[in-house]
Amino acid sequence: MHGIEIAVSTVIFALRDDPRNDCTALGMPLVRRVRQPYEGSWALPGGPVRPDEDLTDTARRTLVETTALSPTYLEQLYTFGHVDRASKPVPGPRVISVVYWALVRPEEAERGIEDDNVAWHAADHPPELAFDHATIVDYALWRLRTKMEYSRIAQAFLGETFTLAQLRQVYEVVLQRTLDPANFRRQVESSGGVEPTGEYLVGGRHRPPKLYRHRAASDLADNGPLTRL
Amino acid sequence: MHGIEIAVSTVIFALRDDPRNDCTALGMPLVRRVRQPYEGSWALPGGPVRPDEDLTDTARRTLVETTALSPTYLEQLYTFGHVDRASKPVPGPRVISVVYWALVRPEEAERGIEDDNVAWHAADHPPELAFDHATIVDYALWRLRTKMEYSRIAQAFLGETFTLAQLRQVYEVVLQRTLDPANFRRQVESSGGVEPTGEYLVGGRHRPPKLYRHRAASDLADNGPLTRL
Repeated sequence: MHGIEIAVSTVIFALRDDPRNDCTALGMPLVRRVRQPYEGSWALPGGPVRPDEDLTDTARRTLVETTALSPTYLEQLYTFGHVDRASKPVPGPRVISVVYWALVRPEEAERGIEDDNVAWHAADHPPELAFDHATIVDYALWRLRTKMEYSRIAQAFLGETFTLAQLRQVYEVVLQRTLDPANFRRQVESSGGVEPTGEYLVGGRHRPPKLYRHRAASDLADNGPLTRL
Repeated sequence: MHGIEIAVSTVIFALRDDPRNDCTALGMPLVRRVRQPYEGSWALPGGPVRPDEDLTDTARRTLVETTALSPTYLEQLYTFGHVDRASKPVPGPRVISVVYWALVRPEEAERGIEDDNVAWHAADHPPELAFDHATIVDYALWRLRTKMEYSRIAQAFLGETFTLAQLRQVYEVVLQRTLDPANFRRQVESSGGVEPTGEYLVGGRHRPPKLYRHRAASDLADNGPLTRL
């Protein structure tokens, strides 16, 4: 036996309204560690891979166990395996973590988490994190922003139907910049990733905005040949 | 102990001239297995992760040990962890493979491999492969083709300097379609990924073609925050 342990950790992102300043921000649930090493620090949800469990199943199970969330998008991100990533500052076994990332819709994220040791944090300004989890979060944020530029991943943050203003808000919050509404509308309409439902957003407005939905053909987590497995 | 073993495998791609039909094709070195399971079948180069070895170091070491190749591009691809991927048809321990992919320049690939159990094969028509390695190769090919569309990864197949015709050939061989030379030139020149060296290809031609090089700023294996580790 080589004595290397295998775990799965998951970075979970959702758009959440911050009641303190009436802003929408990118949030991320974290788990407070109740034992050494890093006791009391925050960490990504996760746990060891069971002998009879596929990696994606470990991701789903630990995600439900810690946060009770079921994601609309779950994809393998990267495997972190530096020799001493789990054995400093307190000596311990070597742990290789297969990291997944998940995107959750706002109505899921608003439900709240009924566990005193689990809480939402701002993805951009997380508290001090255990192990190499700060690097993992940095990398996940970078991948999310990069992938927003060339894929339809932004739709994973929204419900079944949404307005173009809601879709634009996802881009604005994640990319942290303001986008011109008219340009955005042109780009989205020409990309073919969404289609109008024929319905309008319910509300008291004089001209209610159109609702859109994802095109059925667009697979958000496009893994090519792996999708068929 | 959970009894799960960790290995690294690497999919290596290079453009190679096929002497039989005077064509250039995408090649991939494979290793013939000399023991059960799958004795006699071809497999990806790789091996177990040593206790004191980072994952990338295992990839580099096993790559040198089996093929003596040192890649210009080496990146983590995906971690394959299905429960029974290594225990069928012959029962054995569970193995999780962190798979890397490497791109090698033609002059490296032409040097040949001095091992009877290692040989280049056509990436598109590989022989029957051990374990789930056929799925891994399919996935690596899909990632290569997808990534060619939005990054400068094609340059990793070429030497320090190259003509636009050589760069176009990389795209044509990997994507398996013919590209219009004038359109290709316009796209490459406007992308900013290459710059003219001021030199010309040496040869007997009346109008020798210009040589280009990669722009220093373009990092071929762009892993964002991970690149700084």
